[in-house]
Amino acid sequence: MPEFNVVGKSILRNDAKEKVLGSARFGADMKLPGMLYAKVLRSQVPHGWLKSLDLTRAHKVPGVQAVLTAQDVPGLNAYGIVFKDEPVLVKDKIRKRGDPLAVVAAETEELAELAAKMIHAEIEELPGVFDPLTALADGAPVLHGQSNLLMEQKVVRGDVDQAFQEADYVVEGEYRTGYQEHAYLEPEVSLALAEGGQVTVWASTQNPHYDRGEIARNLGIGINQVRVIQTITGGGFGGKLDISTQILVALLAVKTGRPVRLVYTREESMIASIKRHPMMIKMRTGATKEGKLIALEADILADTGAYASQGPGVIARSVVHAPGPYDIPNVQVRGRIVYTNNPTCGAMRGFGVPQVTFAHEQQMDILAGKIGINPIEFRLMNCHKPGVVTATGQQLRHSIGMEQVIKAAKEKQDPEAKSLPGKHRRGRGISCMWYGIGYTGKANPSGAFINIVDDGTVIVLTGCADIGQGSNTALAQIAAEELGVDAGDIRMLSADTAMTPDGGPTSASRQTYVSGNAVRLAAAEAKKVIYDQAASSLKCSSEELKGEQGKIFIAHDPAKAISFKEAVGKCYYQGKMPFGRGYFNPSITSLDAQGQGVPYATYAYACHIADVEVDVETGQVRLLAITAAHDVGRAINPRSTEGQIEGGCIMGQGLALQEELIVRNGKILTPSFSTYLIPTTLDAAEIHPLIVEDQEPSGPFGAKGVGEPCLIPVGAAVANAIFDAVGIRITELPITPEKVLAMLKNKADA
Amino acid sequence: MPEFNVVGKSILRNDAKEKVLGSARFGADMKLPGMLYAKVLRSQVPHGWLKSLDLTRAHKVPGVQAVLTAQDVPGLNAYGIVFKDEPVLVKDKIRKRGDPLAVVAAETEELAELAAKMIHAEIEELPGVFDPLTALADGAPVLHGQSNLLMEQKVVRGDVDQAFQEADYVVEGEYRTGYQEHAYLEPEVSLALAEGGQVTVWASTQNPHYDRGEIARNLGIGINQVRVIQTITGGGFGGKLDISTQILVALLAVKTGRPVRLVYTREESMIASIKRHPMMIKMRTGATKEGKLIALEADILADTGAYASQGPGVIARSVVHAPGPYDIPNVQVRGRIVYTNNPTCGAMRGFGVPQVTFAHEQQMDILAGKIGINPIEFRLMNCHKPGVVTATGQQLRHSIGMEQVIKAAKEKQDPEAKSLPGKHRRGRGISCMWYGIGYTGKANPSGAFINIVDDGTVIVLTGCADIGQGSNTALAQIAAEELGVDAGDIRMLSADTAMTPDGGPTSASRQTYVSGNAVRLAAAEAKKVIYDQAASSLKCSSEELKGEQGKIFIAHDPAKAISFKEAVGKCYYQGKMPFGRGYFNPSITSLDAQGQGVPYATYAYACHIADVEVDVETGQVRLLAITAAHDVGRAINPRSTEGQIEGGCIMGQGLALQEELIVRNGKILTPSFSTYLIPTTLDAAEIHPLIVEDQEPSGPFGAKGVGEPCLIPVGAAVANAIFDAVGIRITELPITPEKVLAMLKNKADA
Repeated sequence: MPEFNVVGKSILRNDAKEKVLGSARFGADMKLPGMLYAKVLRSQVPHGWLKSLDLTRAHKVPGVQAVLTAQDVPGLNAYGIVFKDEPVLVKDKIRKRGDPLAVVAAETEELAELAAKMIHAEIEELPGVFDPLTALADGAPVLHGQSNLLMEQKVVRGDVDQAFQEADYVVEGEYRTGYQEHAYLEPEVSLALAEGGQVTVWASTQNPHYDRGEIARNLGIGINQVRVIQTITGGGFGGKLDISTQILVALLAVKTGRPVRLVYTREESMIASIKRHPMMIKMRTGATKEGKLIALEADILADTGAYASQGPGVIARSVVHAPGPYDIPNVQVRGRIVYTNNPTCGAMRGFGVPQVTFAHEQQMDILAGKIGINPIEFRLMNCHKPGVVTATGQQLRHSIGMEQVIKAAKEKQDPEAKSLPGKHRRGRGISCMWYGIGYTGKANPSGAFINIVDDGTVIVLTGCADIGQGSNTALAQIAAEELGVDAGDIRMLSADTAMTPDGGPTSASRQTYVSGNAVRLAAAEAKKVIYDQAASSLKCSSEELKGEQGKIFIAHDPAKAISFKEAVGKCYYQGKMPFGRGYFNPSITSLDAQGQGVPYATYAYACHIADVEVDVETGQVRLLAITAAHDVGRAINPRSTEGQIEGGCIMGQGLALQEELIVRNGKILTPSFSTYLIPTTLDAAEIHPLIVEDQEPSGPFGAKGVGEPCLIPVGAAVANAIFDAVGIRITELPITPEKVLAMLKNKADA
Repeated sequence: MPEFNVVGKSILRNDAKEKVLGSARFGADMKLPGMLYAKVLRSQVPHGWLKSLDLTRAHKVPGVQAVLTAQDVPGLNAYGIVFKDEPVLVKDKIRKRGDPLAVVAAETEELAELAAKMIHAEIEELPGVFDPLTALADGAPVLHGQSNLLMEQKVVRGDVDQAFQEADYVVEGEYRTGYQEHAYLEPEVSLALAEGGQVTVWASTQNPHYDRGEIARNLGIGINQVRVIQTITGGGFGGKLDISTQILVALLAVKTGRPVRLVYTREESMIASIKRHPMMIKMRTGATKEGKLIALEADILADTGAYASQGPGVIARSVVHAPGPYDIPNVQVRGRIVYTNNPTCGAMRGFGVPQVTFAHEQQMDILAGKIGINPIEFRLMNCHKPGVVTATGQQLRHSIGMEQVIKAAKEKQDPEAKSLPGKHRRGRGISCMWYGIGYTGKANPSGAFINIVDDGTVIVLTGCADIGQGSNTALAQIAAEELGVDAGDIRMLSADTAMTPDGGPTSASRQTYVSGNAVRLAAAEAKKVIYDQAASSLKCSSEELKGEQGKIFIAHDPAKAISFKEAVGKCYYQGKMPFGRGYFNPSITSLDAQGQGVPYATYAYACHIADVEVDVETGQVRLLAITAAHDVGRAINPRSTEGQIEGGCIMGQGLALQEELIVRNGKILTPSFSTYLIPTTLDAAEIHPLIVEDQEPSGPFGAKGVGEPCLIPVGAAVANAIFDAVGIRITELPITPEKVLAMLKNKADA
């Protein structure tokens, strides 16, 4: 493996200091002179007709500068990542609790809140539908258009019926997964300023370029009249891909002529924002007695709630990934996603794959048990290897680290833990996953500019939003490596629609791969100018040159050198400008009706081994440790990659064991961290991240992605470990003590 | 001449509305929360040693947050465009009245001013030198280093001595020109914010990228820690190429941790800022009896005052342009520029050429008179024509519109005005000029990025500062023409060092030519992506395509078309990013010791015909009209070009007739508009701009430049017109009534 100077080094993140010292200014820290504060009035009913809004009393609250309703939205009054089905402010139909009815701007937050409460809304309530199966039945209340079926997607390959007939072993299961809240540290916030025919919105966002379009459409102005600047963002995990506060503050800023800020409270964030899709998955898996997987059938039903959000993208990803990282010649998967009056679901770390992995990895264990093969061996036998053809008909040739991650996890797992005497039983479970990097079967390019200043400082302009995952550090390392300078010489300017090219969403684990390539190509273009200059100074050809740590030298005669800075200075002196542009779009095709195509250019692979301890008296499950092996292609910054793995595992732990968003008749009963329990430091398992680097030839220095893969295997690994510990198979997430206790009781009764 | 859709059209300037409505926010309109106000303490003596500063009383003024002196400058404490010879705050040696000794930041402007007055400066005064000839003499006080001679530059071609012997007619004259104040509407202003290890300075400036380097060096931090954003700038004319307020506010912002703004008063601006160089020019010109110019000798002495500023660039330009736009085979020019304790002089619209033009154009008239040729015919006979070799040895081949502008001015001049009966005598004078576009013999590149948004909006990122001359409109037209869209589809982002590539200074009439080319090349790169896409949609080759007004069509079958916006949308849909980068550097070489080389890639040409009316009783000269013909290569925006010509002529009128900066012992006695008289609307002559377009092949759509040329001929045209009216020859600018009256008296006495 080639050795690099900057790539592959665990340099300090370029935002570390300001975050550790608390000096980083998040959106809620921002103030502008004359700024107003906004508050939203939201629906308390899940379905109904908004008959009227009486604003009289709200307008009388002192300090109120504007009270806006649907009729104050000059543009489309609709937004959405895939379909424009969600109103900025409800005009007539309310589809969920939390739908925004009106928004107020006032001199203080308290006055704005008071005024919002003073608005009287007359609503004619409609019967709601809160279950996707009911929503598909005849006579169900319909939320949008003619049917509640938002999308159906299939993946069909080979002859499943025939294959199941030929299978020696077939197992069938039904799996359910629950909601999950993103629970970013920083709730949604935006600040808007309207001035000189331009609207500038500072927003905590994963995709400023998308926000720009939505703001423009809803304000009825040109995209060129809107500038969105991403503020330092305290986490996104998919939840800040959607519009939240952005359009509302822009409307208010235009209306009042003053800057306006809107910050969600935690409760408002939990009520208004999207969630992970709950899914019901029926899965049948067949194998020969030799242990060869030959058939998989799955039916997936997802509840998208009141609006589409990223639902279509999530279900597409679920069906593609449902077979798992295995070579199965006969596959038939159907995915359906359905509107209900429940909270809206959308993108969340894993994007529909954690749900199907929870199913296929338990199927694998059950099947291995039936055949009588060790579950690890069974996976090694069947997993993706170079040359495999996936269920979408895509042949994979490179960077398929599935065997390596299984072997790495197996090798590094703790020596077999003994169950303690008494009520605590220990067990171990394995789970594998694959994950396509980037958007599913859809162009998702990124562009970058690089401009090198006369002191050798490299300015990278990228649309890529660093939402806390560290992309600004990774992209700086990529630029530095390509140019032969130190990462400290790179200055990142990201996610400002006025100055940076579109980087696409920070989503789908795509930014290191896609924006990383764009930055590398831009750097290469700038490098050519500088190295040609260096070659002329050193009287050699530029092909003979190498660059390291700010020095450019002749590879076979390193004493002949010029500093990068000096070469840049010479370029300027001679009027040659060292800058470049690059863009990258993954090589993919869209999926056809049978789900055939090349949905992703490359895949990440992972294997987790989980150790749990079950208290057989209380049903409490402690996740002791996860050994998490990930093929990331190349870890641009290993410490950052490990950080991602640790964070993802703990979020997966929450999904597996703790986080239960209870929704009744569309109402979230657990809208705070005192009732919705995310893992704390004390809960967190010990994570052993293992980085495997099966380089991806099309990735920047071989890199793929890791942001989501690290969460995906956890649920199934825990479920398999619980089975190992106490012999019960839990098929519904989260695995609460109540469910464990009930199954232990059933088992004892049986 | 090819017809264009956007180039060559007098579209409304993109800053017109906000400026007309008064909504444009200039630097002095900007405020940040917690902002402090700065005031400078300046030296009242022109030469001396600063022994000590007692800050005690200043610190006691309420609201004072910082009082800085030289010891608070952590970096170089020296700046300068060519040489770093000027202190941010004087450490020991005072070299002019107005040198900054200390700077205060306080809660209000009044408190800051009071505190500055409370500082006691102990100064040991030194004898000063206030005349360049004296400054060169032995024993004169020396300002810097070993000698007051800042620079000497020669241009030598042919054998001048021999040629003068062969000449049938030789005329010799001595000419003097005075100071000129830039008198921009908006005095100097900057606002600084220091936050998170970064210093951001908003400044009224002609070159933010230069400012960035100076701020960094003087703060002792990296260039990458400084961001300079040009504010809307109310004029520059060369005077805002130098540092004024930028470093002081940056120092104060870092020191206090609060935003700091410094706005000069008009008087402070006039005392502290640079001026046009006064020059003494001895010139000898020789011709044959047939009227062929064969020899020119000139000796130029310029007073740069206390610091170099752009002095070396100014004197280099003076010597190159001293022969005028004429084919003279034998030339010998020497230019010297000298330090004195007078106000600093630097770049000002024309850059040393108005001074030499005042000389050579009077020489031409005198010589024509002696030979007995009509002055216009004499100029037509001798002027530059394609193939001419200049005194620097440069052969000119293209875009030499000298004959055309003379003919155009001649043709369009008013029918010969009759002198009125009585004391008012009318006369007419001609003057020609040439002007090299861009910096003299020095790389001066510009770069641009272009990014096209998915709605077809084109974002241009250019370092070029629009200082009111309209470059943002001209560059938008260039981008629009290249891309085949409307100028309204272009959004300009200019002059922000964080986001825009270096565009170099807005100076030397270079931005349309240099940045215009950079923008055009960037647009061409982006266009390729879009037109390839359009070609694939229209099933043709991209060479067959033409673009106009947002439509791309097959040139020979215009019904087959796709909108630009749709083609851009398709690019994004397919993951092809429509953006580009371009840079341009004029093809030049440096001048050798004999002044030989290619100092400029192209030259603008102009001919002015002035009509004056002399009151023989008061000596008052009224400039009635100027017919101003300019070869601009191509007028990107004719109305804007005419506006430039009108403004330049009126500024030239001030230089010629009104503006007298009286300096005694280094002290400006006329530091306000009540004593330093610039032309008002009522004074202004009627200007008849004539645009001649002899396209420059290396220019964007043929364009060269016009910003400075329009001022240059005025002084000599007026002097020649006065001679025509009353038979006196005034060789010193400004031509005040006192000088006219004295010469009329001399003439009458003789």
